[in-house]
Amino acid sequence: MSAIYVLNGPNLNMLGVREPELYGTDTLEDAREGCARVAAELGHELRFEQSNAEFQLIDWLHDAYRDRAGVVLNPAGLSFRSVPLLDAIKILSMPIVEVHITNIHARDAAHRDSLMSTVTDAVIAGAGIFGYELGIRALDRMLARQAQPV
Amino acid sequence: MSAIYVLNGPNLNMLGVREPELYGTDTLEDAREGCARVAAELGHELRFEQSNAEFQLIDWLHDAYRDRAGVVLNPAGLSFRSVPLLDAIKILSMPIVEVHITNIHARDAAHRDSLMSTVTDAVIAGAGIFGYELGIRALDRMLARQAQPV
Amino acid sequence: MSAIYVLNGPNLNMLGVREPELYGTDTLEDAREGCARVAAELGHELRFEQSNAEFQLIDWLHDAYRDRAGVVLNPAGLSFRSVPLLDAIKILSMPIVEVHITNIHARDAAHRDSLMSTVTDAVIAGAGIFGYELGIRALDRMLARQAQPV
Amino acid sequence: MSAIYVLNGPNLNMLGVREPELYGTDTLEDAREGCARVAAELGHELRFEQSNAEFQLIDWLHDAYRDRAGVVLNPAGLSFRSVPLLDAIKILSMPIVEVHITNIHARDAAHRDSLMSTVTDAVIAGAGIFGYELGIRALDRMLARQAQPV
Amino acid sequence: MSAIYVLNGPNLNMLGVREPELYGTDTLEDAREGCARVAAELGHELRFEQSNAEFQLIDWLHDAYRDRAGVVLNPAGLSFRSVPLLDAIKILSMPIVEVHITNIHARDAAHRDSLMSTVTDAVIAGAGIFGYELGIRALDRMLARQAQPV
Amino acid sequence: MSAIYVLNGPNLNMLGVREPELYGTDTLEDAREGCARVAAELGHELRFEQSNAEFQLIDWLHDAYRDRAGVVLNPAGLSFRSVPLLDAIKILSMPIVEVHITNIHARDAAHRDSLMSTVTDAVIAGAGIFGYELGIRALDRMLARQAQPV
Amino acid sequence: MSAIYVLNGPNLNMLGVREPELYGTDTLEDAREGCARVAAELGHELRFEQSNAEFQLIDWLHDAYRDRAGVVLNPAGLSFRSVPLLDAIKILSMPIVEVHITNIHARDAAHRDSLMSTVTDAVIAGAGIFGYELGIRALDRMLARQAQPV
Amino acid sequence: MSAIYVLNGPNLNMLGVREPELYGTDTLEDAREGCARVAAELGHELRFEQSNAEFQLIDWLHDAYRDRAGVVLNPAGLSFRSVPLLDAIKILSMPIVEVHITNIHARDAAHRDSLMSTVTDAVIAGAGIFGYELGIRALDRMLARQAQPV
Amino acid sequence: MSAIYVLNGPNLNMLGVREPELYGTDTLEDAREGCARVAAELGHELRFEQSNAEFQLIDWLHDAYRDRAGVVLNPAGLSFRSVPLLDAIKILSMPIVEVHITNIHARDAAHRDSLMSTVTDAVIAGAGIFGYELGIRALDRMLARQAQPV
Amino acid sequence: MSAIYVLNGPNLNMLGVREPELYGTDTLEDAREGCARVAAELGHELRFEQSNAEFQLIDWLHDAYRDRAGVVLNPAGLSFRSVPLLDAIKILSMPIVEVHITNIHARDAAHRDSLMSTVTDAVIAGAGIFGYELGIRALDRMLARQAQPV
Amino acid sequence: MSAIYVLNGPNLNMLGVREPELYGTDTLEDAREGCARVAAELGHELRFEQSNAEFQLIDWLHDAYRDRAGVVLNPAGLSFRSVPLLDAIKILSMPIVEVHITNIHARDAAHRDSLMSTVTDAVIAGAGIFGYELGIRALDRMLARQAQPV
Amino acid sequence: MSAIYVLNGPNLNMLGVREPELYGTDTLEDAREGCARVAAELGHELRFEQSNAEFQLIDWLHDAYRDRAGVVLNPAGLSFRSVPLLDAIKILSMPIVEVHITNIHARDAAHRDSLMSTVTDAVIAGAGIFGYELGIRALDRMLARQAQPV
Repeated sequence: MSAIYVLNGPNLNMLGVREPELYGTDTLEDAREGCARVAAELGHELRFEQSNAEFQLIDWLHDAYRDRAGVVLNPAGLSFRSVPLLDAIKILSMPIVEVHITNIHARDAAHRDSLMSTVTDAVIAGAGIFGYELGIRALDRMLARQAQPV
Repeated sequence: MSAIYVLNGPNLNMLGVREPELYGTDTLEDAREGCARVAAELGHELRFEQSNAEFQLIDWLHDAYRDRAGVVLNPAGLSFRSVPLLDAIKILSMPIVEVHITNIHARDAAHRDSLMSTVTDAVIAGAGIFGYELGIRALDRMLARQAQPV
Repeated sequence: MSAIYVLNGPNLNMLGVREPELYGTDTLEDAREGCARVAAELGHELRFEQSNAEFQLIDWLHDAYRDRAGVVLNPAGLSFRSVPLLDAIKILSMPIVEVHITNIHARDAAHRDSLMSTVTDAVIAGAGIFGYELGIRALDRMLARQAQPV
Repeated sequence: MSAIYVLNGPNLNMLGVREPELYGTDTLEDAREGCARVAAELGHELRFEQSNAEFQLIDWLHDAYRDRAGVVLNPAGLSFRSVPLLDAIKILSMPIVEVHITNIHARDAAHRDSLMSTVTDAVIAGAGIFGYELGIRALDRMLARQAQPV
Repeated sequence: MSAIYVLNGPNLNMLGVREPELYGTDTLEDAREGCARVAAELGHELRFEQSNAEFQLIDWLHDAYRDRAGVVLNPAGLSFRSVPLLDAIKILSMPIVEVHITNIHARDAAHRDSLMSTVTDAVIAGAGIFGYELGIRALDRMLARQAQPV
Repeated sequence: MSAIYVLNGPNLNMLGVREPELYGTDTLEDAREGCARVAAELGHELRFEQSNAEFQLIDWLHDAYRDRAGVVLNPAGLSFRSVPLLDAIKILSMPIVEVHITNIHARDAAHRDSLMSTVTDAVIAGAGIFGYELGIRALDRMLARQAQPV
Repeated sequence: MSAIYVLNGPNLNMLGVREPELYGTDTLEDAREGCARVAAELGHELRFEQSNAEFQLIDWLHDAYRDRAGVVLNPAGLSFRSVPLLDAIKILSMPIVEVHITNIHARDAAHRDSLMSTVTDAVIAGAGIFGYELGIRALDRMLARQAQPV
Repeated sequence: MSAIYVLNGPNLNMLGVREPELYGTDTLEDAREGCARVAAELGHELRFEQSNAEFQLIDWLHDAYRDRAGVVLNPAGLSFRSVPLLDAIKILSMPIVEVHITNIHARDAAHRDSLMSTVTDAVIAGAGIFGYELGIRALDRMLARQAQPV
Repeated sequence: MSAIYVLNGPNLNMLGVREPELYGTDTLEDAREGCARVAAELGHELRFEQSNAEFQLIDWLHDAYRDRAGVVLNPAGLSFRSVPLLDAIKILSMPIVEVHITNIHARDAAHRDSLMSTVTDAVIAGAGIFGYELGIRALDRMLARQAQPV
Repeated sequence: MSAIYVLNGPNLNMLGVREPELYGTDTLEDAREGCARVAAELGHELRFEQSNAEFQLIDWLHDAYRDRAGVVLNPAGLSFRSVPLLDAIKILSMPIVEVHITNIHARDAAHRDSLMSTVTDAVIAGAGIFGYELGIRALDRMLARQAQPV
Repeated sequence: MSAIYVLNGPNLNMLGVREPELYGTDTLEDAREGCARVAAELGHELRFEQSNAEFQLIDWLHDAYRDRAGVVLNPAGLSFRSVPLLDAIKILSMPIVEVHITNIHARDAAHRDSLMSTVTDAVIAGAGIFGYELGIRALDRMLARQAQPV
Repeated sequence: MSAIYVLNGPNLNMLGVREPELYGTDTLEDAREGCARVAAELGHELRFEQSNAEFQLIDWLHDAYRDRAGVVLNPAGLSFRSVPLLDAIKILSMPIVEVHITNIHARDAAHRDSLMSTVTDAVIAGAGIFGYELGIRALDRMLARQAQPV
């Protein structure tokens, strides 16, 4: 059994309120509940956090490094330009899955190319908050492979 | 119950043999089996195809339009520049999930930006052939939402 | 009297169904009928074809070269990036008019700049399927000029 | 019966003299006569003008707006960079067809991409002064469609 | 008391009629009245002009130079590419405030980056025709500072 | 009567000290006083804040959303690249006016194109700290329009 | 003996007043006198004009075409983007020398690359108003070569 | 003794007819004969093919992989943008030499940069159909080196 | 004797652990000790700090301004895009030396061009943590020059 | 009386032989004679040199600095990319006129933008070897102005 | 019998030592021997040279022009930016084949696009020092064609 | 004890005279003395050279390779575009430190991005001629690390 961190970036505390025609009406609490259910099903311990501050997300990624936890990360608005967050991801030794609620590849230039995706292991975009569950399933599979004897 | 098409583009018939350090040793037959299992679990009829020819993929997408099928598409090398395939995707009225075995966003310039992603509903990349299963799960969820009374 | 080839590229078999708010509800059969009527009026023999395959369009252009036929070409999604089609056009010795149903110049980046237009003789865009008739009229005028004694 | 404006931009008064290997030896008077003949055939009132001044073309477009006239416009050298002309076209409520004597898409960088084409309804390029006649035919068809009861 | 020139560029004579969903239904006469009221309140003499001709705007800027007048300029479609207008602005020795009715920075590529803004003293965009009044207030403050003994 | 938030980004606490040849010698306290005077004149409640932290500005914008307050925002150095701030602005349902002390459009590449301007309602740049007063006046006018019965 | 046209573009009527640290304090009248002296010395008839209007310069170039005159042209602010002027230059059959008072190649991006230089015969930049005299000398030499029996 | 595949892409069936001032008057049959002669001299078994279809070339490359054959490839118009072909080349484990009849580096932008060259072992361009013979010689040398005991 | 601030940006608290094949196994504590030794040798008072938060680094730079301290700054991941940090550096009146542990100029696109280097006085990159000592020596020399009577 | 250096770059020793349809059939010796005649007429001492080596031209520019000579420089193929030559020009304290035999602005991309022109005082291009004489006249005028009492 | 020059650019004197994992362990002397053998076989006189100096290569190309020799050129590091070398190649009237030891098209951005290839007749890259032999064979064939009676 | 080469590129022989407001008034002799003092202190043998010729610097780098010397290199104007110099640096097996007297990163586009920095081990810029001493110290440290038993 591994620990799994689900980390959420800026403005995701406003989910459900924020541009609902784009992000839907599900809230971050809905996402947390889905994650808790799937993590329990797969036998992982869950830590679920949100912050509007870049440094806080970096600190949590440092924690994940120390805990040897797998990470599901929705970097939100920090996806596109934050080199400090990029550097923090590169420190990790366990798998990390990047999740976006919308299909960012179909959006405007400012929200299209995640810099994080150049270093994360997998990316899931456009599946709504259901994407978090898919992300945990993908992470579970990756962790299982790493745990196999060679 | 809906029909689901899983369509695979050029060179995926060589999966397992093709650049295994990048694509892994699982074969397309392994992917087909995983898809069959998940489709059965979720109660969908599955059509699973591969072709090296762009026109064949376009024809299958036209079929999917006529069958009102959901689509999981791995456009492979056609992802990056094929406007005819892009146009065929835009004809569809049911959801389509794009799957890539590798995390294309972390690759070289020629394999980084999928033109298809600008019109598909969701994108899953980097989860290996397990991504097909996640794609079917995402599609199942989208089809269920569409089927709901408003 | 000259032979005239009207050649149609990928997804045009879906005309009327395909993004009707953009392409209208006229079908390719409607276009064929209009072409037949104008070709007859101007005294030309008509060959009208459609294919989703790049190689098929190339083969037809080679045929047109051998028949010394004038060509009206709607390259559709192949307009924007197909160098093989471009090269096939350059082999022709008779005039070729490029037709687009929509005004491609007013569309998104992927559908805006036809590579074919750098080598075709004339371009007609945005006149709907009526553009095919205008294309045949333009071709007729060009063929008449070529046939004049110098 | 509608009024049709045929408006010509800078240097077109020199047609026949101006780079004849490129533009041919037909004069603007030849073009006016062709337009008069086709407009009469289709039952439209014709206004045919030329100016080297951007502001004059803008004023005529304002007139066309007030007269609810359809427009055939050859913006000539103003095609490529004139935002004031672009803005004047956007005021129009009736269709506008852009005509170029040469196939501008096959020319040098300074004469290749018409800014006007991003807002005109249709574009005809490369058919010589015969393109004006095709433009009036295309306009006639568009005006007929607009005049149909819905 | 200083003279203030309010100068308006191409197509602004059509204000109220021109793309009203974008520019609103206020007319240029409404703008003139607002300017007159604020200029009177602040004790400035007002000259309010509009032209579709680049050279006319240049001539008026030369007049403003000779009158040592402050200028409020809405260059409209000339904002984006007119180097002659840019050069005329650089001749001025009194402050100049640039006004745009819409927030041009949120518009399409052709209407987004005003070349004039690289040499004007202040820019006000997106406040509708009320922006003219704000422009005169800003100019009044700048003129007052210039008039202070050092 | 509406609440108005005036929010100031990084380094503006150093106003008066910071590059005075560029930003002038007025301090942020001077700006606050001007805002208080104009807000009182127009009958609005004022909240005036400054922070060097991106997350703090995001939190205040979330507060403004909840208070249904109009916003005057000087994003300072965050103007140019902060997607999280951009996203926070897009959540607002009331008008927002962006203010810059200098004319950023006339500055170096790093300080020229505000990403925020693509989503704010109006932009005022180059009027010094007097720009805050103009911003409140513009906001007052927009709030009045929104409050009108339709 | 040939006729020589010396044509001057926008804002050059303000020479001596306009940015004197850049353009110097010589006036356009000084330039005209220098041209008259050299033209007389070399036995050419001189026409010397200035206009702020693009169309006026085009008309004069059409005149020069009809007079078979050589041209010295200072296109000023029109140098950088005017395709109509470019097209008018291309009509000429006699040599044309482009003159700039400043070394435009050492200036800012908006004043650096003359579009006209891609079609003029020779370019002289940075020699102040003395450049006009050099331009007439260069033109004289070119006209002499053209007049030689072959 | 190794098998050598010589594979030819679109429009090369028209060699001798196609733009002869550029490609010369030698035919593909001439090229085949030259290849047969050199392959025989060096003791290799030859397979020589041409197709206008991308998928056919991909299938032949898969065959070459299975046969452990060296490849001489002239991708013709597919050189410049075909990622599926690029991916098929990357599957090969034996050397591949890319041949172009013309010096593509000296041609227009659409025919200048072969994407294939980023993964082929060697490139020979501009030697006409003699380039095929040079390609076989280069391949022979590479195969000999691979066959050496280490 | 001057105060010297050595300020470290995001993720540098993980030095020794973070990508050791790139950054080495020395820790930030090792760097601090080296700085202390050299500062003592040269007679400067040292303040050595690290933070993952952009605003914290800005606050420390404001402190340095008030203390009239020289600064050695390793902006780490904030080097490449942080305009707020750039603006804070520009407030300083004493010299600032930028240090990078790796030679950033030889790295990937996201880590290659420090925006800070456009305003810092000197840059030292690639010398490992020994670069901090070199930075203090360089700063010492600059402070000595500033302190010289003119 | 001042010394004037006329310095010529790579391949100009082949003038008359080198691409005569572009550079003409005049030789460098012809150019030297023209320079000698004009220098004598204007009372200047002439040094006329040519080299294919960048370092040699740099050394001669250093000589010119020491001699306080004006310079006419034809940098030929070094014009476009040589930063060492650029730096050597910037050392000079006397005027320098850049001469090109052809109108480089009308040539291909590799020969169009002289880097030297960003620091030379004046540029003359396209007047053939007569450009050297014009260059000496321009230099004479500049030297005379520098020599005037202020 | 013709003379053939084989000319080698900078750092090729270090072949065998220089980045052997890239360039191999063959030396330039090995290359010279291979060239001598093939030149003798084909009946050509060989001149084989190497220099680190651009001007020396230019001088040798001038010699080749005078000797009417064919040239095999490996411009090495000068391939990518040397306009003087480019100009010297354009003077030649006999064929020139460009050879690179590595496949430069598959290398980093600084070593990928040879400027020389835009004017050489043929290019051979990636065949190691065996490429020199292929280059001489290609040259021999071209010289034979030139020598044929027309 | 190792040998250290300090190599200086074009125009550095003019240090003290060359743009002193930028490069200072210290001469290259001053730099040599500083280097000699530090090299002696650290026990290294010093070779200090300057040349305006690219090939000379390449030859010295080849010497350094043969002597197994560490190198401090100021490539001056060759920094920005010389691929031959780049290639010569890549041959070295001992460390190389690049030194620039000014902070090139804060300069104009032509002097900003050193191509050499992509392959040197460390870069020191903006510390004046004191940078040479820092460079030798950095080199000494790197050489010491290389000499350590593993």
